[in-house]
Amino acid sequence: MESRPLDALNKSRGKRVIVELKNNKQYIGTLQAFDIHINVVLDDAEERANGELIRKIGTVFVRGDTITVIFAA
Amino acid sequence: MESRPLDALNKSRGKRVIVELKNNKQYIGTLQAFDIHINVVLDDAEERANGELIRKIGTVFVRGDTITVIFAA
Amino acid sequence: MESRPLDALNKSRGKRVIVELKNNKQYIGTLQAFDIHINVVLDDAEERANGELIRKIGTVFVRGDTITVIFAA
Amino acid sequence: MESRPLDALNKSRGKRVIVELKNNKQYIGTLQAFDIHINVVLDDAEERANGELIRKIGTVFVRGDTITVIFAA
Amino acid sequence: MESRPLDALNKSRGKRVIVELKNNKQYIGTLQAFDIHINVVLDDAEERANGELIRKIGTVFVRGDTITVIFAA
Amino acid sequence: MESRPLDALNKSRGKRVIVELKNNKQYIGTLQAFDIHINVVLDDAEERANGELIRKIGTVFVRGDTITVIFAA
Amino acid sequence: MESRPLDALNKSRGKRVIVELKNNKQYIGTLQAFDIHINVVLDDAEERANGELIRKIGTVFVRGDTITVIFAA
Repeated sequence: MESRPLDALNKSRGKRVIVELKNNKQYIGTLQAFDIHINVVLDDAEERANGELIRKIGTVFVRGDTITVIFAA
Repeated sequence: MESRPLDALNKSRGKRVIVELKNNKQYIGTLQAFDIHINVVLDDAEERANGELIRKIGTVFVRGDTITVIFAA
Repeated sequence: MESRPLDALNKSRGKRVIVELKNNKQYIGTLQAFDIHINVVLDDAEERANGELIRKIGTVFVRGDTITVIFAA
Repeated sequence: MESRPLDALNKSRGKRVIVELKNNKQYIGTLQAFDIHINVVLDDAEERANGELIRKIGTVFVRGDTITVIFAA
Repeated sequence: MESRPLDALNKSRGKRVIVELKNNKQYIGTLQAFDIHINVVLDDAEERANGELIRKIGTVFVRGDTITVIFAA
Repeated sequence: MESRPLDALNKSRGKRVIVELKNNKQYIGTLQAFDIHINVVLDDAEERANGELIRKIGTVFVRGDTITVIFAA
Repeated sequence: MESRPLDALNKSRGKRVIVELKNNKQYIGTLQAFDIHINVVLDDAEERANGELIRKIGTVFVRGDTITVIFAA
């Protein structure tokens, strides 16, 4: 069992995740990278708002302090 | 008696907790991990808003600075 | 006379206090622990909004950056 | 003449001050303690909103990051 | 020519300045002190909102993180 | 595969990117520079709101803490 | 080519720039000084809201954390 949140997040590398933001937007993509600020990079990402697809945006950098939750897609 | 808040939080590891966010969403799950920023990982989690189940989301990473309170489910 | 705010807060350990949050919720409970971030743990706590009891929640961890004021219940 | 803001604040120790918060509440009390985060403790305090007395609350701890201004009552 | 913002601010010591806050209030007074957080102390200050005098408040401590701009009165 | 978010961002240097802000404005330009705070400089930039061109602004410095996401234009 | 955002900003010293704030106000003036927090000092400045001149304010100190973008006037 992992005892640290970033270890748990590390297990999602290479997998599809949903990243939710404080402004209620969602970014769904393959978790490529993250750091201690929870800055995140997703590949093959798409943006959604209220569950609806807004656009496909390829690779996206998400600034950590705008993120609320991250979970498996 | 614990004298530090994180010691108290540590006693909830492996137990069901409710994590409330500044945006009024709640995440209920088994507390797997947390760190000094209060970044939290919950297993077998579900998201609720105003007490109603929104969706089951498995393992979820919650960024600490979005959290207001954590208590036993 | 204490010259530091945390010393004053320390005198409330084991006593009933009211913790008010930026979102206008109140948590009333026995002050068990706090740290330099003003993260707080209350025992035998209840949540109130606008003075009305919302629910009893036992032990609660309150993240410091959501707190506005703490005073004796 | 003091050249540092905290020196000026220190001159108000033991005197009645008004502490205004970002949420527009005011706390009026005797300045007992403060620290570099501007966490403040007031004795014999009362809470006001829009200039009207809400309640008397004795000693109150005010978290620094919620404060906008402090001046003599 | 000064190359650092705090050097420029230092030239206003002892002069009348206007300090504007994120909540749109203005404090006009004689700049007595400031620090690297831009915590500011004004003497002979008055509070204004939307350009109108609200009240005279003598010496006022303004917490830096609530300030947007400072300029000569 | 890059394991750090800033490495991924670095691959976009010299390319057209879209920088979205918390206030919903977008800046589209050639990524010239960024730092660990995610302060960003774009060349040949234009500002958009809700997808519509507001104005062309040449080189623009965007303060990191206002940014939500960055992706290829 | 500069690789750091502050180097790019440094090239605007002595030139007219537009500084936009989170509260949608704009300050247009000659960039005299800035620091790593992006605290900025402008000379011969004027304040605008929604593109309209509000007032001329001479030299102005703008606190960094209120700034969204800076670009040539």
